[in-house]
Formats: sequence, C-alpha cells, structure tokens
Amino acid sequence: MEKVSLAEAFGSFDETWSPRLAGELNGQAVKLAKADGEFVWHSHADADELFFVHDGRLRIEFREADDVVLEDGDLLVVPSGTEHRPVAEPEAEILLFEPSETRNTGDVETEETVTEPERLG
Amino acid sequence: MEKVSLAEAFGSFDETWSPRLAGELNGQAVKLAKADGEFVWHSHADADELFFVHDGRLRIEFREADDVVLEDGDLLVVPSGTEHRPVAEPEAEILLFEPSETRNTGDVETEETVTEPERLG
Repeated sequence: MEKVSLAEAFGSFDETWSPRLAGELNGQAVKLAKADGEFVWHSHADADELFFVHDGRLRIEFREADDVVLEDGDLLVVPSGTEHRPVAEPEAEILLFEPSETRNTGDVETEETVTEPERLG
Repeated sequence: MEKVSLAEAFGSFDETWSPRLAGELNGQAVKLAKADGEFVWHSHADADELFFVHDGRLRIEFREADDVVLEDGDLLVVPSGTEHRPVAEPEAEILLFEPSETRNTGDVETEETVTEPERLG
C-alpha cells in the first residue's frame, strides 16, 4: 500500500488530457489529468464519471443542461450517457473516478484518445 | 447534476465518524466524514476502500504493515480484507470512496456503526 500525494503526482508530469493511473479499487480507476482549454464533446455509454478539481477551474458543458463550473475542492458526477465537454479555464489539475476500462474520449476517437493510461511513476 | 464543494459540505455538519453521502456512481458511493481520534479496528471483506484527506492528518494503522500517514491531498487505497484502524491526529476531514453498501465499521458492529449514511444538504 502506497499513498499518493496529489501535489507530488501532478508535479511529476506535464502532458495535458493524458490521464495517469493513480490507483484502482473495486473495478474502478482513480486517474489524474492535467487539462488546458477545450476537450472534445463525448459521452460514456455505460459509465458514470466523477470529476474532482484539485487545482484550477474546469467548466463542464452539457448539451441539455447548464454548464457547471468546478474550482478547487469541487466535485461532480456526470451520469452515463450524458454528452459533455470539459473546458479548463485556462488550466486545471483534475482527478477522475470511473470504471477502469473507461477511455477519456468515450464514444469518440480523436488524437487525444487514451485507452491504457500510464501508471504514475 | 449538482456539484459538491468539499469546503461547504464539511462546513454543514459537525458529527465525527458519521459519513455523509455526497454522491453515487457505478454502484460506488462518495462519502464525507469528519474524524477525531481513534476509530475501531475493522475490515471490509468484499470492498476496497479509498481514503482521501481534504484537511488534517489521518494515520491508518495495519496489523501487518507499517502505518500510513495521510495529510491534505493524500490518498490511499486499502484492499478488501485488510484489517485497519483510522486515527485522526487530532482531527481530519476525509473523503471515502467505496461500494454503496459498505458500512463504516465493516465486519464489526459498534455504537459508531452507520448502515445508511445521511445524504448531504
């Protein structure tokens, strides 16, 4: 059992929109990602997704609901099947909680798609 | 979809070792708890449990491994079946992530056992 310090973990990489695996439990993964600007619109058919902002500001846009703005210490659960677009304003360090097999761009495939997140060093 | 601010949520109750339900996803629950001093030794037979410290200091003791000390922004996954005892030094605000049906005292029943956590707000 090794603890993970979010401050150290986020200090260990720079790449944006490229989640790192921080831990797994009960078939779910804890992923850490740096975000800048707009991500792609997508949804996850079978997976609810939790966003938690460690540092910065993340706006999450929805097709059929008002935007939700998350700042340090805020969390939001996006239900499965809900199309959404994360937008960092201008940057954010975020923790994601979702099933281990969930990929970052959900139902769409782009240059940013990550299928197997790298485990944190 | 409603966001949860950890600062606001922890400001909304005082009771210790009595988890509040902050959200649910994929059969897992996000619970917030205030901790002070020693909790009871226990384990969860079928549930891994994630501890994340929002504020304060939480030492987690194990029967067969060294203690792990968590401070602000640190997280740890305790595997299922691992007997452990959380000890806040002297207080801590913690986020737990575990299956919705997991109760706080696991395999033991004490005055502190909570089977159905109250929903926040």
